[in-house]
Amino acid sequence: MTPTPAREDHFSFGLWTVGWQARDPFGDPTRPALDPVEAVHRLAELGAWGVTFHDDDLVAFGSDEGTREKQITRFREALDETGMVVPMVTTNLFTHPVFKDGGFTSNDRGVRRYAIRKVMRNLELAAELGASTYVFWGGREGSETDSAKDVRAALSRYKEAMDLLCEFVLDRGYGLRFAIEPKPNEPRGDILLPTVGSALAFITSLEHSEMVGVNPEVGHEQMAGMNFVHSISQALWQEKLFHIDLNGQRGPKFDQDLIFGHGDLLSAFFLVDLLENGGPSGAPAYDGPRHFDYKPLRTEGIDGVWASARANMVTYLLLKERAAAFRADPEVQAALTASKVGELAVPTLDEGEGYQQLLADRSAFEDFDLEAAAGFSYGFVHLDQLAVEHALGAR
Amino acid sequence: MTPTPAREDHFSFGLWTVGWQARDPFGDPTRPALDPVEAVHRLAELGAWGVTFHDDDLVAFGSDEGTREKQITRFREALDETGMVVPMVTTNLFTHPVFKDGGFTSNDRGVRRYAIRKVMRNLELAAELGASTYVFWGGREGSETDSAKDVRAALSRYKEAMDLLCEFVLDRGYGLRFAIEPKPNEPRGDILLPTVGSALAFITSLEHSEMVGVNPEVGHEQMAGMNFVHSISQALWQEKLFHIDLNGQRGPKFDQDLIFGHGDLLSAFFLVDLLENGGPSGAPAYDGPRHFDYKPLRTEGIDGVWASARANMVTYLLLKERAAAFRADPEVQAALTASKVGELAVPTLDEGEGYQQLLADRSAFEDFDLEAAAGFSYGFVHLDQLAVEHALGAR
Amino acid sequence: MTPTPAREDHFSFGLWTVGWQARDPFGDPTRPALDPVEAVHRLAELGAWGVTFHDDDLVAFGSDEGTREKQITRFREALDETGMVVPMVTTNLFTHPVFKDGGFTSNDRGVRRYAIRKVMRNLELAAELGASTYVFWGGREGSETDSAKDVRAALSRYKEAMDLLCEFVLDRGYGLRFAIEPKPNEPRGDILLPTVGSALAFITSLEHSEMVGVNPEVGHEQMAGMNFVHSISQALWQEKLFHIDLNGQRGPKFDQDLIFGHGDLLSAFFLVDLLENGGPSGAPAYDGPRHFDYKPLRTEGIDGVWASARANMVTYLLLKERAAAFRADPEVQAALTASKVGELAVPTLDEGEGYQQLLADRSAFEDFDLEAAAGFSYGFVHLDQLAVEHALGAR
Amino acid sequence: MTPTPAREDHFSFGLWTVGWQARDPFGDPTRPALDPVEAVHRLAELGAWGVTFHDDDLVAFGSDEGTREKQITRFREALDETGMVVPMVTTNLFTHPVFKDGGFTSNDRGVRRYAIRKVMRNLELAAELGASTYVFWGGREGSETDSAKDVRAALSRYKEAMDLLCEFVLDRGYGLRFAIEPKPNEPRGDILLPTVGSALAFITSLEHSEMVGVNPEVGHEQMAGMNFVHSISQALWQEKLFHIDLNGQRGPKFDQDLIFGHGDLLSAFFLVDLLENGGPSGAPAYDGPRHFDYKPLRTEGIDGVWASARANMVTYLLLKERAAAFRADPEVQAALTASKVGELAVPTLDEGEGYQQLLADRSAFEDFDLEAAAGFSYGFVHLDQLAVEHALGAR
Repeated sequence: MTPTPAREDHFSFGLWTVGWQARDPFGDPTRPALDPVEAVHRLAELGAWGVTFHDDDLVAFGSDEGTREKQITRFREALDETGMVVPMVTTNLFTHPVFKDGGFTSNDRGVRRYAIRKVMRNLELAAELGASTYVFWGGREGSETDSAKDVRAALSRYKEAMDLLCEFVLDRGYGLRFAIEPKPNEPRGDILLPTVGSALAFITSLEHSEMVGVNPEVGHEQMAGMNFVHSISQALWQEKLFHIDLNGQRGPKFDQDLIFGHGDLLSAFFLVDLLENGGPSGAPAYDGPRHFDYKPLRTEGIDGVWASARANMVTYLLLKERAAAFRADPEVQAALTASKVGELAVPTLDEGEGYQQLLADRSAFEDFDLEAAAGFSYGFVHLDQLAVEHALGAR
Repeated sequence: MTPTPAREDHFSFGLWTVGWQARDPFGDPTRPALDPVEAVHRLAELGAWGVTFHDDDLVAFGSDEGTREKQITRFREALDETGMVVPMVTTNLFTHPVFKDGGFTSNDRGVRRYAIRKVMRNLELAAELGASTYVFWGGREGSETDSAKDVRAALSRYKEAMDLLCEFVLDRGYGLRFAIEPKPNEPRGDILLPTVGSALAFITSLEHSEMVGVNPEVGHEQMAGMNFVHSISQALWQEKLFHIDLNGQRGPKFDQDLIFGHGDLLSAFFLVDLLENGGPSGAPAYDGPRHFDYKPLRTEGIDGVWASARANMVTYLLLKERAAAFRADPEVQAALTASKVGELAVPTLDEGEGYQQLLADRSAFEDFDLEAAAGFSYGFVHLDQLAVEHALGAR
Repeated sequence: MTPTPAREDHFSFGLWTVGWQARDPFGDPTRPALDPVEAVHRLAELGAWGVTFHDDDLVAFGSDEGTREKQITRFREALDETGMVVPMVTTNLFTHPVFKDGGFTSNDRGVRRYAIRKVMRNLELAAELGASTYVFWGGREGSETDSAKDVRAALSRYKEAMDLLCEFVLDRGYGLRFAIEPKPNEPRGDILLPTVGSALAFITSLEHSEMVGVNPEVGHEQMAGMNFVHSISQALWQEKLFHIDLNGQRGPKFDQDLIFGHGDLLSAFFLVDLLENGGPSGAPAYDGPRHFDYKPLRTEGIDGVWASARANMVTYLLLKERAAAFRADPEVQAALTASKVGELAVPTLDEGEGYQQLLADRSAFEDFDLEAAAGFSYGFVHLDQLAVEHALGAR
Repeated sequence: MTPTPAREDHFSFGLWTVGWQARDPFGDPTRPALDPVEAVHRLAELGAWGVTFHDDDLVAFGSDEGTREKQITRFREALDETGMVVPMVTTNLFTHPVFKDGGFTSNDRGVRRYAIRKVMRNLELAAELGASTYVFWGGREGSETDSAKDVRAALSRYKEAMDLLCEFVLDRGYGLRFAIEPKPNEPRGDILLPTVGSALAFITSLEHSEMVGVNPEVGHEQMAGMNFVHSISQALWQEKLFHIDLNGQRGPKFDQDLIFGHGDLLSAFFLVDLLENGGPSGAPAYDGPRHFDYKPLRTEGIDGVWASARANMVTYLLLKERAAAFRADPEVQAALTASKVGELAVPTLDEGEGYQQLLADRSAFEDFDLEAAAGFSYGFVHLDQLAVEHALGAR
């Protein structure tokens, strides 16, 4: 009855997700380290298609060149044996104490230079492994007090770093696109580029903005109380949804990184509907990886790790089935029409109409039947209840 | 000991603020209607410089032409008598039931056309009164269920309306600039363009994006848990801070519209420091109106209304004094240097340096003294405590 | 496929829910007034069992005695005709401006006396109509500034009022129990007794605490980020769940009063499981009214009002089916055992064991196999995924 | 100009505060371990009066008896040398993986027994060191999914543990009082007894409830959007404020543990006013330790650690000065009278008045001048502005 994940579903996982040892701010690790090679094999068996990583997930920070090469070779072999791909790679600019005031925007210029170099080194590896997306999560770019961070200067430095790295990738012909991952806070009190919107705005300032998009994460956006479906819709509308991080969160609190669907289930339903069906627009909206960035609960042993990896995929597939049924249901289609949902795709102006014509149209204002329009019953309750019933598998 | 507001402080108030009759979702009005003419006179006496309004604040919705002209004439006379200016005007696209599913993005096309016409009519008046900014708060543009709103289509309609209105204003030579006011929710469950970032991103899609900026409101941004100083900094960095709404809020809850400083006082201190002193950047950052968009508490009679209007201005001026002392304090200047706050304004790359040179600089990576940089004590605590002590008037 | 609500499901609605005219802080009403008699008939037809009201819902504030009697008579007739019952009644101490600083805790002693009298008058009616529960929602008991409210004195006055009203009801032999409804904020900046916990604590201070319990509302508790299932569990554990208000909310923001299940769907699933099945404890936990306190969306006409009333009940019944299947599933039962969920019902001490015995038990500490216990995999992921799949109707 | 902390101010610090090595969920430690002996000496030099600890702060978990005794001896010597006292002690039931599903409420009975034993061992030490308060922070008592925790059974186990420990302390004659510290979430998704209110309610269920109170923490309560001054007021009113944790937080997000006053400054002002002056009630409300439970920013070296310790105390003392001036200001006293703040301390009923008399008093209802009472202007704006100006040191 529950669907089986398969390669063509394009599910991918970060090494740091299944590999999380469950250290949290108040507790020691509850699980041993997981060999990335083991992770690749087990994820492949479960039906995943890709694996992603931070540089330090694959090769421990500070390893010598020999260790590094050996680890990369073992990883490549695992990929070859399993057919797993590496669709995305990213950099760890947050664990080492050197980044305690940020990477690209640290007050310390030496740290900023070091951070860019660390990224460049890993971009080379990403290109070698065939990744198409490189993610930037600036978790340490931020502050706890407004006295200590010149935010405008910080944004200039952020731009400087991104511009340089774009140029590097373009010159090298790596074929990588960049995706910025917003987050409002944690570990910093306030993180720069806190929401999808602020990242989209920042991107327009870049020299090579065409190659930079966003990597929104369900939980990060919900930590700010944002409607994730709205955020993704704006990213799509601005043609900047380059990658996505799926997980769960239960409102504004610490970053929970729950299994996809184990947070706001109804929002997850509408998200899958948007990605797979384009929502009311009616065409698939996103064809990139379905990437899970979550943490297996700290209460679990390694069996729970694999159960949680599978749970992400199964829940996604179940919601995909529910969303397909929702769109196919004639009662839903009738309700969409009654609610004029499709009418919003019709331009407000007639073809060729300008403001003069609109001003001259007395039916638009002077003779507009205000009371009739005000009295229209939109029928959103009926539509939403149909969605809830489809989500519950009751239709 | 408390400062006295004066015209040169450029304080302005919405007619709807002092004129709020204190109806709330659970209660009837506690104050009688306030004549806009009375509001202009009293605000002028208190030291305000400007007054702003929604079309329906000045002339009741549905008034005939004669009433409208008469009311505008009375209002103009009050302006003339007091010397008050009208720096900003806006439209009410939210009170009448016709806008219950939005103005520019209602599913009902007729409503969208009507909304644009309502704005055009008021733009003419704004221009006549010499306003330089026209604000768009799309409080009804949004949804309660993702099933009923095609957000991508909605953004296209939003853009269509803004593009048309830009063209109208440019053709008419009104000299107005537009400012979009973001808000995350209330009255809609989720409002489109919920934060400063999302509005900034949307603006870049417009045909005449150069004439469109943002009008951030303290409380709206804090309802999403955003750091308002960060949001304003990004708006300034993107040269889009066209106007500002000052008030107070106590975290993510209903829109409180408290008096400026009566919410997050420390954030208000840093905000005034940013606007007046440019924060650490050192040059005034904003020279537009200091506009208060707040609500006098429902417990107050008309005396409390005027007390609250004055309180906004006095608190602003007190914080301005505190911020000036903070910047002038040699101990603060030494602490800023110790914390390398100014170093963030120094480009990360040397002049003319590209990625090749950076790659070749072994001191940036291979020979970088990681432990020294990691061990640096930034001194942010000392700096923040100096700020707190200045805010408390203790230095 | 969707279940049909029936009287034996014990669904009840407030007159103010279906009767809400959709005035909100930024908008005028979108619907005409609804006659309570009409409401009773339509709700009965939809399968509801009971109807509840504030005094002013049934009889407009300030009506003369004749009007009042007539309105009550008409209402009684509707009850008789439909068989609908009145399980709960409550008082409006929030709409009239006189209550702008509270009812029982207004700084104005005259208002406090008036408020108690208003309640007493309506208690008489509640008793006449056979209500068994009387709810106190102190929405105006609170403050916007800590300078203006002596909270300890306010709690003393709150207690004074409750004690007096308990005595009144006991002396009159009305057989009513009281239920306090907590809410963290809105319309006041901060409301007294903000959560279920604070109300439970307050109740223990009352003279007749045995007759006072709580009336938790889904959305109110979620506005404070509380886990509603936990809150209800504590109320049950303290034997104080006297009534419940079902609706939906999407996190800390204004009070949305959405349809039940249209907010946090997974939490709604577990709530129904708790009420109907007792959760893991295995016995029905609550046999009182399933009372809906929600608002039909402002976009809807009267058809949407009735659709929304029905949607509340259908969603509840669907979740009841899902929860029953979850509890009946042998795989779930095995998972519960594996996760030791039932072991928590076993006392930590052996029968008759005291601290001396525990201290003497070396297996409890000195010889405890810490690593084995630390390494235990609890299996919560598997259990939660089973719950999600049952909620989605996929098992 | 800034005040100097002194022993008589009764400031205390947890060893875990200044000793925090700044490991966070995304980063490695930035500071070396701090010897508790060093901490005692430095805190004493800075003007602190007391030091507190978890068992594992003083003696590393798993140390043998010899190491333990030696460490305790060294610590005692430091206390003797400095005159520092140990007013409070607590237990770490959260760091070791064995507690991953809780201590007193773990689904695993063996863990529950072990947890109680761990507490008992440390209670003996607390008594030896002369502590008067023992704190229980149940940070791991909670869940991430409602499927896996029987909350009612958990509360029974919580009670069982507390009852046993009360008995142990009473029998031993330790003279300790218990204080439960609420927190809504983090590290668990939802923690049991999430707010001051829920803890107060739980306490009433205990066998020896008279010896159990609460230890509210500023940030924990603000993570749930609670007004901390209200929460403390209720705890005082119920005579259960046994201890307090002072720090700072910026709204619902991860637990920031900022310096006191570096979060919500205005709330900190009113808190100090309540503790020191009793707020409007006019008598000191709390005479226990002023205990700081905060974390020095991760960006700081050891100099920043001591700067932050001092900053907590200085800010408290500055606010104490501001609050004293506020209460002494005749204009404030006049405003309090005008706002009827003191009138709330007057019983609503006349002496000897019962409900019959109130019913007979026509002036209370039938002849009550509703419009006059409704029209009263409470003057809260004026009062709040006076408070803000005093906080800013402007009066």
